[in-house]
Order: sequence, then C-alpha cells, then structure tokens
Amino acid sequence: MTLRHLDNPSFPPALVAPGPTQVPPEVLEVMARPILHHRSSLFREALRAVRDGLQEIAQSEYPVLLLTCTGTAAMESAVVNLARPGAGAAVVAAGYFGERWVELAELYGLDVVPVRYDWGAVPSPADLEEALRRRPDVRTVYLVHSETSTGVVLDLKAFTEVAKSAGALLVVDAVSSFAAVPIETDAWGIDVLITSSHKALMTPPGLAFLFLSPAALEAAGEGSQPRFYLDWARNLATQVGTDPETWFSPAVSLVTGLEQALRMIEREGLDAVYSRHISLGRRCRAAVKQIGLELFSPDDDSAAVMTAVRMPEGVDSSDVVQAMHDDGRVAIGDGEAKLKGSIVRIGHLGYVAEADVDRAVRALGSAVESLSATSKPRLSTGMG
Amino acid sequence: MTLRHLDNPSFPPALVAPGPTQVPPEVLEVMARPILHHRSSLFREALRAVRDGLQEIAQSEYPVLLLTCTGTAAMESAVVNLARPGAGAAVVAAGYFGERWVELAELYGLDVVPVRYDWGAVPSPADLEEALRRRPDVRTVYLVHSETSTGVVLDLKAFTEVAKSAGALLVVDAVSSFAAVPIETDAWGIDVLITSSHKALMTPPGLAFLFLSPAALEAAGEGSQPRFYLDWARNLATQVGTDPETWFSPAVSLVTGLEQALRMIEREGLDAVYSRHISLGRRCRAAVKQIGLELFSPDDDSAAVMTAVRMPEGVDSSDVVQAMHDDGRVAIGDGEAKLKGSIVRIGHLGYVAEADVDRAVRALGSAVESLSATSKPRLSTGMG
Repeated sequence: MTLRHLDNPSFPPALVAPGPTQVPPEVLEVMARPILHHRSSLFREALRAVRDGLQEIAQSEYPVLLLTCTGTAAMESAVVNLARPGAGAAVVAAGYFGERWVELAELYGLDVVPVRYDWGAVPSPADLEEALRRRPDVRTVYLVHSETSTGVVLDLKAFTEVAKSAGALLVVDAVSSFAAVPIETDAWGIDVLITSSHKALMTPPGLAFLFLSPAALEAAGEGSQPRFYLDWARNLATQVGTDPETWFSPAVSLVTGLEQALRMIEREGLDAVYSRHISLGRRCRAAVKQIGLELFSPDDDSAAVMTAVRMPEGVDSSDVVQAMHDDGRVAIGDGEAKLKGSIVRIGHLGYVAEADVDRAVRALGSAVESLSATSKPRLSTGMG
Repeated sequence: MTLRHLDNPSFPPALVAPGPTQVPPEVLEVMARPILHHRSSLFREALRAVRDGLQEIAQSEYPVLLLTCTGTAAMESAVVNLARPGAGAAVVAAGYFGERWVELAELYGLDVVPVRYDWGAVPSPADLEEALRRRPDVRTVYLVHSETSTGVVLDLKAFTEVAKSAGALLVVDAVSSFAAVPIETDAWGIDVLITSSHKALMTPPGLAFLFLSPAALEAAGEGSQPRFYLDWARNLATQVGTDPETWFSPAVSLVTGLEQALRMIEREGLDAVYSRHISLGRRCRAAVKQIGLELFSPDDDSAAVMTAVRMPEGVDSSDVVQAMHDDGRVAIGDGEAKLKGSIVRIGHLGYVAEADVDRAVRALGSAVESLSATSKPRLSTGMG
C-alpha cells in the first residue's frame, strides 16, 4: 500500500512486453482530449477511419466488427456465433492461446479434433491436412497465427490453403500478429480474422476486431448458441455503411486513440512497419545470444513479434521479471501457465525502438546474473 | 469525410448527455500517462484502489468483479451466470433498459414474468409483490434502478424489501445511478449490483463492475449456461485478495483513470456528490420549465440523474439533438428506441457543473425555437 503510483511523477517501467504494449505519446494525447459522444457525427467519423485503416492492414474488404472487450471475448464470439453443438472443429494448438481455442470449443459443445503440439513447436500444415482428411465432417478450423505464449508465428498462408482445400471455414487468432506480420485476409481466404487494440496497434487494451467473410456470416446465421453482446449480426447491423454506429456505448477514447495510431502506421508505411518488426526480432535474438542465454522461440525471421528466452537451470522466470521491473525499470512478460518459471518473453511489437530492445536485454542479463549468483549457493546447500 | 476531427484543435461539443459523460481533466491526464503492465505491482495497486473505492460507494463488502466491456455485457453476465433455462424470472420494465432485461432473460430460456409499465412510468413495489405472490416459483428479480431511457429512478430500497420477503435474488442495473444516487448494497440486501465506468464514475466507457452477494455466487455455481469471458467465478478467482489481477488483459488505462476519478469522489465526499446531483436536477427542471418545455421525467428530486424533456408537437428530437450538437456545441441524448423523436435527455450525472446544465438548456431552447419556426409553416402548408 506504499506505492501510490498515481502520486509518483516518474515514468513507470518501460513496456517491452508482448502486450499490453507501449502507447505512443501522439496516441496518448488524442485519448486525453475531451470525450466524444458515441452518437455524434464526430465519433462516426472516427469509426469510419478506424474501419478503413484496419481494412488496409488486413488487406480486406470484409466488414470489420468492433467490440468493446479483449481478444479473448472476440475468440469466444467466434465459437458462440459459429457453433452448432456436436459439430466437428479442428483446433491447432501449440501453446496457451491454442489451448484456449480447445477450451472454448469444448465449452460450447463442439466435437474437437485437436492438432496438438508441445508448447513452442512450430505447427505444420501437413498435420492439419492429415487431420482434415481423417475427419471430413470437420467444417471449421481454429488456429493462432502468432502464439503469444511461445513466440511462434506459423505459416498462415499455407494453413489457409489446407483449410480451403478441405472446404472448411478458417478462424484465426491474429491478436499479436496483426500489424506486425503481413496478412492477406481476402486473398488467402481467411474467414474470421481476430485482433485487438493493445498489441501492434499501439493502443491500450479494451477493443477487439473481427474481419468476417461472407461464408463466416452465413455460418453464423445458422449458429444455435444464444448470444447478445457478442452477436455478430446484431453488432454489425449498425457498423456497416457510411454512417457507422455501435450498438452499445463503445470505448470511445480507445477508438479515437486507435484512429491516431492507424495514422502513424499509414505514415510509416506497412512495408516499413513489417521490416521494422523483423529487424527488431533479429536485434533481440542476437543480443540474447550475446549475453549467453538460450532462445525458446525460433531463431529465424518468423519470430518478428516477440522473443522468448529460456531461463538457466535454477533461475525462476518470475523472479527475473520482478527484478527487471523493480531494478531495471523494464516490464517484460513472464511465461504463461506451464511455461511460467522457465521462460521470459520480450515483446518487440508495436511502438518499440531499438533502444527499448537493448535496454530490455541488458536488464534481463543483469537480473539473470544476479539471480544465478544467489540461486547457486542455495542449490548446493540443498544438495550438500 | 471533411470533418477530420483529429486535426481540429477546438474542443468537441460539451457532453451533457446521460452517458458517456464528461471526463475530468485530472482523469484524462492520468490516462495519458505511459501504460502499466497488467501483471505488475503498480497495476495491482490500481486494481486494489479501484475495488476499495467502488466498495465505499456501494456500501458493500461483497467482492467486486471488474470486466472489460460495457454495462450491457455485465447485464448479460448476470443472466448467463444465474440462468437455469425454464426457471421463472420476474423483470420490472418501464423503459428501454428494462426491456433489455426481458430480452436477455428470454434469450437464455428463462420463463419471464414481466412487471411491465409504459415507458416513463414509475414502477411500484406493490406490483412486484403481487407478481411474486402469484408466481412463488420465481427465484430471481431483474430490475433497473435508474432507467436511463426515461429518467425515472425507482425506490430501490422498497423493491429490495419486496424481493427479500419473497426469498428471491435481486439483480440491479445501477449503471446510471451508481455514484449519483445513494445505494446501500449490503444493508438493503441487493444480490447483484451492476455498474459501468462511463456514467457518474466520470471515466470513459469500457469497464463494467458487479458486486456479488454470497447468495448470488452460490446461485451462479448452479447456473448451467456455458460461459467463459463473462464467467463470474473464474474472473473473480484472480481478483480477490490483497494482490488482485485480472484473468485477461484489462483496459489498463481506464482502470488507472477510474482510480483518479474515485479519488475525486472521495475528496468531494459522497454526501456532497449526492446533494450535487439533486441540486443539478432541480436546476435543470426549473430551467426547462422556464423556457416553456414540458418534463417527461418526474418533476421531483428522484430525477437526480438526468432530465428527459418532451418535444413540442411537430419538432423532432433527433433534429434538436443534431442542431444542439452542430450549432450549440452541446451533446445531449436523443430518445431511445420508441422514444426517439419525442424526447431529449439532458444528463446531469458525474462531472457536470451548473454552467453545463444552463448551457444545455439554453441550447435546447434555441434549437427547439428555431425548429418550431421552420416546422410550423411546413405544417400549415400541409394542412392549408
């Protein structure tokens, strides 16, 4: 109770985490302006601009559904709108968020066909192809483009081809890949693309978005689960057209903030944004290896979103994250669920500079070094 | 496409609407600070402070559940967590949000016992008592404390007594009454109290809160509807205790903003806050009558949240709201659903000063006058 962060005029630790990510001052400034009324022409303009900017990034002309919630609720909305209990659903899972798809699909009564991997593995399109060959009744595939718990970004185009060949709908969690890694939603044939505001879109958490293909909307019309807040058709009804509105009071300040963030992305140029993510990934991996630590995420340019790092024997990742936060003034991500303790995650997505990555890896090195020093004697005492 | 509100350095129209409401500069300033990581000690401190501040206002020691969504999703969560399809549920409905309870309860298969009124009527506890006497199987009552579509604030204490006497759970939508009108959650015996960030709590939309009694949590344990994002027990599991966290990445900037707003409420003192709402209501009603318009909401101190005003014959409320927005630079609320066209709503909840109310009523007078002038010739032409 002694922190009183509101009274502390200093900056909080720098965010070099896989999300929430840092928000640019230009975006913070827009969100600090007086609130717009959600039924006003000014706010409708903001909604239009956000929709256009998101479609540009997604390379999509599909309707964009905006929801005031996090990416998890958007994932749930896909299952709730598409699900007919008992229907087969293939789920590619190689980490915490892949397993969330499994949990959601089982919760709503789907007959789940898991295409499962060890956490941290890179899923192979051939395995999905095989699963769909064995279970031709499966009409929907759920997967995670960028598995935020491991740093693995799968080959989305190849997975989309497999799903399309089998005539299945493809639902993609692109929460941490969107605006960091190229996605061609319409050209590849993705049916449902999900993202949220607080990763590479450089805006605080609280908004989620779905791009919905005609086939996805048709399937949703046949879904039998009751739903209200997450109902696609009813939410979309007011959001399309030249004069969009939301059904409920949306998070207006996050919408106007995102409008500004999208301008920054447009100004930098999408190609430059994607190149920057690749180059920050390279820089991060090189720096991590330089300080003698081992990568958990792949050591190649697919790992453009974040870098996961294994902890040395005897060093707990939670202690490292805490030490970096308190002493190094850098916030990074701990391992999720069963990876907690053994890996840390450095995010280089969104509003991140080379200096942020350097600072994070430096702080990581110091924290691991000082915790290794204290952990070793303890280990030998226990064994001696 | 010519508005470009982001490039416009002037202030948007003043918000004197029933929500979203104006956000104080002190709150905007906090939200413009660098983002906190949601798994950090600083953010856990913010969560604790928000929880404590909300409990103080609700006069409650019940656990507070924070969700990143709007009040509607929090309402849906009550039905989803409590519902066993086919069970009887009494719903008091005298406006748009009361009817939302009916719609939600029917959607999830409840056997709805409506206690229904014309929109704008003041519900009577005796009617609920009678309904519960006729249907002793009803175990849950849903109602709206402050019906934001009409301006009616019902006698919540009296309704709570009726529900308690019948041994029913009471679920209260207090979205627009919370922090504007006194509520004694625990002492009165409310089981589920729902509110959100963007009314009298003076923070932008995007957060909702539920106070949950032990009986409500027990009933939720027996609820049979599948749910994930809105599941009370799983969300609450990480939010209780001295070191609270949220299950998912919450809207961190709104949480820290709310922390500041709660400080402002604490500084002013709850009694002073409630008195201010009553006195702004009086001022607004007097001013409306002064310009010769007729009240739609009650002409007494119960109408402390907002004032609904009937439009004169031949004047469309939507035109009035538009004219006030564009010419008077004041944003107020249009009528909702079937009241659209015939009433406007001036919000005097949250961060509102006497000058704001005066300005809104002045702009209302001008808009009605100028629209009456244009509408009358048109009327006589049509009739002539």
